[in-house]
Amino acid sequence: MTTSNPVSRRKFIEASTAAAAAAYVANPALAFALGKPSGAAHGVDSSHLPWRDQGVLNLNNSPYAKLHSVPVRAVTIEEGFWSKRRKTNVDSSIPTMRDQLLEHGRMDNFRRLVGKSTEPQKGPVYSDSDIYKWMEAVGFALQSGDLPAVHNQTAAMIKEVVAVQEPSGYINTYYAQDRAEQRMLQKTQRDGHELYCLGHMLQGAIAYYRATGDTTLLDAGAKMVDDFLIPNYGPGPDKKPIVAGHPEIEMSLIELYRTTGRKQYVDLAAYILHGDDRFKFEPSRIVYMYCGIPFTTRTKLEGHAVRAMYACCGATDYYLETGDQAYWKTLTTLWEDLSQRQMYITGGVGARSDGESFGEAYELPNSQAYGESCAAIGNMMWNWRMLAASGESKYADVIERALYNGINSGMSLDGTTYCYRNPLAFNPDSGEQIRNPWYDTTCCPPNLERTFASLPGYFYSTNKDGLYVHLYDNSTLDWHLENGTPLKVVQKTNYPWDGDVEMTVSPSEPADFVMNLRIPGWAKSAKVAVNGKAVAGAKPGEYLTIKRRWSPGDTVTLAFPMAAEIVASNPRVEENLGRVAVQRGPIVYCMEGLDQNPAAADFSEVAIVVNSKSLKAFEVEHKPALLEGVTVLKHNGAVYDHGSDKAALYADATAAGPKARAESLTLIPYYAWANRKPTEMVVWIPSART
Amino acid sequence: MTTSNPVSRRKFIEASTAAAAAAYVANPALAFALGKPSGAAHGVDSSHLPWRDQGVLNLNNSPYAKLHSVPVRAVTIEEGFWSKRRKTNVDSSIPTMRDQLLEHGRMDNFRRLVGKSTEPQKGPVYSDSDIYKWMEAVGFALQSGDLPAVHNQTAAMIKEVVAVQEPSGYINTYYAQDRAEQRMLQKTQRDGHELYCLGHMLQGAIAYYRATGDTTLLDAGAKMVDDFLIPNYGPGPDKKPIVAGHPEIEMSLIELYRTTGRKQYVDLAAYILHGDDRFKFEPSRIVYMYCGIPFTTRTKLEGHAVRAMYACCGATDYYLETGDQAYWKTLTTLWEDLSQRQMYITGGVGARSDGESFGEAYELPNSQAYGESCAAIGNMMWNWRMLAASGESKYADVIERALYNGINSGMSLDGTTYCYRNPLAFNPDSGEQIRNPWYDTTCCPPNLERTFASLPGYFYSTNKDGLYVHLYDNSTLDWHLENGTPLKVVQKTNYPWDGDVEMTVSPSEPADFVMNLRIPGWAKSAKVAVNGKAVAGAKPGEYLTIKRRWSPGDTVTLAFPMAAEIVASNPRVEENLGRVAVQRGPIVYCMEGLDQNPAAADFSEVAIVVNSKSLKAFEVEHKPALLEGVTVLKHNGAVYDHGSDKAALYADATAAGPKARAESLTLIPYYAWANRKPTEMVVWIPSART
Repeated sequence: MTTSNPVSRRKFIEASTAAAAAAYVANPALAFALGKPSGAAHGVDSSHLPWRDQGVLNLNNSPYAKLHSVPVRAVTIEEGFWSKRRKTNVDSSIPTMRDQLLEHGRMDNFRRLVGKSTEPQKGPVYSDSDIYKWMEAVGFALQSGDLPAVHNQTAAMIKEVVAVQEPSGYINTYYAQDRAEQRMLQKTQRDGHELYCLGHMLQGAIAYYRATGDTTLLDAGAKMVDDFLIPNYGPGPDKKPIVAGHPEIEMSLIELYRTTGRKQYVDLAAYILHGDDRFKFEPSRIVYMYCGIPFTTRTKLEGHAVRAMYACCGATDYYLETGDQAYWKTLTTLWEDLSQRQMYITGGVGARSDGESFGEAYELPNSQAYGESCAAIGNMMWNWRMLAASGESKYADVIERALYNGINSGMSLDGTTYCYRNPLAFNPDSGEQIRNPWYDTTCCPPNLERTFASLPGYFYSTNKDGLYVHLYDNSTLDWHLENGTPLKVVQKTNYPWDGDVEMTVSPSEPADFVMNLRIPGWAKSAKVAVNGKAVAGAKPGEYLTIKRRWSPGDTVTLAFPMAAEIVASNPRVEENLGRVAVQRGPIVYCMEGLDQNPAAADFSEVAIVVNSKSLKAFEVEHKPALLEGVTVLKHNGAVYDHGSDKAALYADATAAGPKARAESLTLIPYYAWANRKPTEMVVWIPSART
Repeated sequence: MTTSNPVSRRKFIEASTAAAAAAYVANPALAFALGKPSGAAHGVDSSHLPWRDQGVLNLNNSPYAKLHSVPVRAVTIEEGFWSKRRKTNVDSSIPTMRDQLLEHGRMDNFRRLVGKSTEPQKGPVYSDSDIYKWMEAVGFALQSGDLPAVHNQTAAMIKEVVAVQEPSGYINTYYAQDRAEQRMLQKTQRDGHELYCLGHMLQGAIAYYRATGDTTLLDAGAKMVDDFLIPNYGPGPDKKPIVAGHPEIEMSLIELYRTTGRKQYVDLAAYILHGDDRFKFEPSRIVYMYCGIPFTTRTKLEGHAVRAMYACCGATDYYLETGDQAYWKTLTTLWEDLSQRQMYITGGVGARSDGESFGEAYELPNSQAYGESCAAIGNMMWNWRMLAASGESKYADVIERALYNGINSGMSLDGTTYCYRNPLAFNPDSGEQIRNPWYDTTCCPPNLERTFASLPGYFYSTNKDGLYVHLYDNSTLDWHLENGTPLKVVQKTNYPWDGDVEMTVSPSEPADFVMNLRIPGWAKSAKVAVNGKAVAGAKPGEYLTIKRRWSPGDTVTLAFPMAAEIVASNPRVEENLGRVAVQRGPIVYCMEGLDQNPAAADFSEVAIVVNSKSLKAFEVEHKPALLEGVTVLKHNGAVYDHGSDKAALYADATAAGPKARAESLTLIPYYAWANRKPTEMVVWIPSART
């Protein structure tokens, strides 16, 4: 937890600026930006990719991005697994969340400042961010052509937002009026989420701009950076220091650079990622905030999970622009910590409610798991950036794990209630209401909405050699290769319930290029064929690279054997000792009490039987009417008569244990839990090795 | 969480007063107190037991106490298990804690208010209580004739304390001067610990009075109750409401009654235990505080563990005076919850750091355990009261479990550092310093000190028929039966390392009376003989009642077979699935990394082997030089080569597991952990059933 002295900090800034500059010079498309005065107009840069063509991240000019995004609008997700979720998202979630935000005064906060509302300030310090995240969800939905009815509503809301911008560029409804004097104090930067709100404003503005070309919100956000932030805050004795407090500003500044071409945003992000030792914080605060010291001194994930994930996103974005190897080394160390020691099987992260934080290595409690929806989303966002930086499939595996499980669980099937925490075991006796339509800290609901709305943008990437396929679902890509050749890819599949995918690859005319097909890490094997002819070399956990001359209508078939698997966790995970989980394809399963025979309703008395015949002991049945259509697993498990509600808390372990009898156990996908009546739930089920 | 309306509350107070009055009338010794005006002198009542003869609790006039305390001074603990701890307590802990309290300004807080210090207020709102709890430790030490050197120091400190008492009777150094206007506001009563501090003042004053006969502090405490509290706060429209905030005042008021004979203190405790619905609190606050609604509406232990334990103490004290069956029913329900679902094997309680609270039923995490030292002490204090009310050995079993393990762990062997939390697993990689000389919230250290200082008072009780023996250690009781017959009992034993106890029972002359000998619940069997002749009927978990004519020099021998036991927990305790603990007699064992061969240093890769021969697989060796003398266990366990620090977080459970090899595992008493260098520790060890 050392922080450098002012001299070394200044040296760092100079050095990183030089490194960044070198990178840009090496990339002629970016050279225009160097030296452009920061006081220039806040509008977007016309030499960049047109707004319509920019993806979830606009990586086309990022020198260290091995993969480049395709725009959300280039991919149409058709009737299948994700179409239901996305339809619910635009038909129900986004509109009802607008109602909730209005009802809870989140727009009145803006209106009050221009005399249009007499309501008092509502909600916590970061309430503006919920409006922005909701606008980002709208932006992504509009990119897919969804939600035209909300377009005008949102445009009107944007007008109300920008109306409160002060001539200085400052915009934040909490630190206004009586609280204006608290702006950007060290304590406010630490806890007040001013830059967090600005970051979400920028992300919302960028998504909306990429949907509509409308720069109203983007100009306002950029103005706050250009006129309020950069002239007054940053390195150097004439400026005041910055701490992110809750990381978010870093990645948004770099995306602002990617949208406008103005390099000062990367420099500012670099400065914030490095921290400014003119601010002193207690070590515990440095852990919690996951900022305030050089990002490159971090060696493990700790502190507030969402903060840590967003910090990693910003740091990876910075790497994508600069190639700074110190960052890459830190990022890969942290990713190792994530995937080897800190991630739930659901892709959720954040073990502890206390501080909404990561725990120690292997500390992954189940019923007490925090697993905030926002943290799982942060995990996906970070891995999307790591995937772009590396082209390595292991990052896409984490995206898939989080998306189908720990993120997907966060929104009810009807799209109107949300999980803040996503535990892996639950007892309704706790009285906890796990899904709610509204939280006073309502970060997760619009975060889930923006994620589902942006989902088409995660299916594919391009590089100069061809196309990467990351996700499988019924869909049509209508885009082009980086050399301009138009390309259409149609996927037909029943994934994730079935492991067969048929893909039609249609360049506008025969062309030599590479198709990189993700072979999921969970697959035991994979068969791939082109036009019916087997292609060798498919390895689970890697991209299968098929370089050939592709002609319109070429078909690729992929077959991933889809079987229930029994998963054990590393013995260092204390709570999972003697327990196993069940996964089938990317879907993690759980048991809910209401699905079991009464005899198996006490989950401390049931066991998954693990032996060489176990895997054949699963019956697989797709139930279209259950939970909007899920594949249910039945397992011939064991039930013990512990009488555990009456048994002593501690007893002689050498006494003969109870006898087991066979009993069918029913498992449903974890993401669909808590969509019926409150009942016990468990992912990690006791195991019996017979 | 219902609260009654004002009418029913008033009715309750009237009814409970009537019930209490009936009880007192039935007990002539108490009748004097009825009708005594509350404005009377604050001094002690001379018709009660002399101060020298009052025990940890003065239960001699408590109509519903089946057992009565003997004074601390009646029992001399001699060279053996507890003598070392008690010597350290008076030689090192109590004096160094005084230094710490002075150094951290806790006495300056008092001096400031009379112009003798210019230091600002130091420490949290409840800082006065730490002085009082330390004084209570001194009081108990003085009762044993220890610490004469501290006597004068303490007398001087008491003068400084009482010097700040205002004419109104109010005394609290935090809510003074600028903060005086916040006194007794609802918010202050909720969080400000004014009555908590008063309660500890009363307990400290009573212990000091019972040591010295000096009523200086006691008079001041009683004056605050009589002149400040009772005239202004309590039931009725002319008085303001009270909430305990942090229960403590209840038990101290009843002990004040037991010391002074003034019944209004019981009435006030009854009112506080019932709660006053003129104060409204959120349900979560009612859970956390464990007060504010009628105690008799509680159905489980929840919320802040120390608050809950102290509330149970106060409620049991109230039952001991009134016999109110609604209280007894609630208390037994809560005790069932404690012993069946909420108590660590160490006797510690409080699963969660978050809110320092109880968890759900069976939520007993190990490394994340809170198990605050104060909560384990509160558990012992509560069970001492339940034992007095019932004469049932199961309560003494809990006292022994907590005392030898979860309390004893709280103080380092050298007596200068303390645990705030007492986890059952620990990894030094967490960076947590588990034992510290000082905490800004320093509740636990003086609480441990008062407990060890008062320990002789827990060894015996009397009833009209004879004597109860609760604890075993080398000691001499020099007291008398309730009929006045002088009685000396000498214990010779190497308990708890050895299960043989030789007891010499010497009434001053031959006399008929009953000896009730506790047969510990952990014993598999027990042999008892009087003068070499076997006595039948000893049952573990019960008192063996020996009614006979005892003559001076009669010997009782007890033999509890002392063997290592392997303990399993109820399968509902998630974290302990697949794990066992080792206990020998009352001592719970643990493994520390530094005692193991390198091959067994990773506790996720070792296992206790559980089979029919397991218990013979323990080698028992007493090591006088290790950890101030402990009996070490060695077990021929299994070590697996999981390579778990490199293994994947999630893997196929059906794959063949690693082979095990035999390896000797070393176990030490849990209470002695973390007294050498930081190293991994575990109580619940993975088990292999072979």
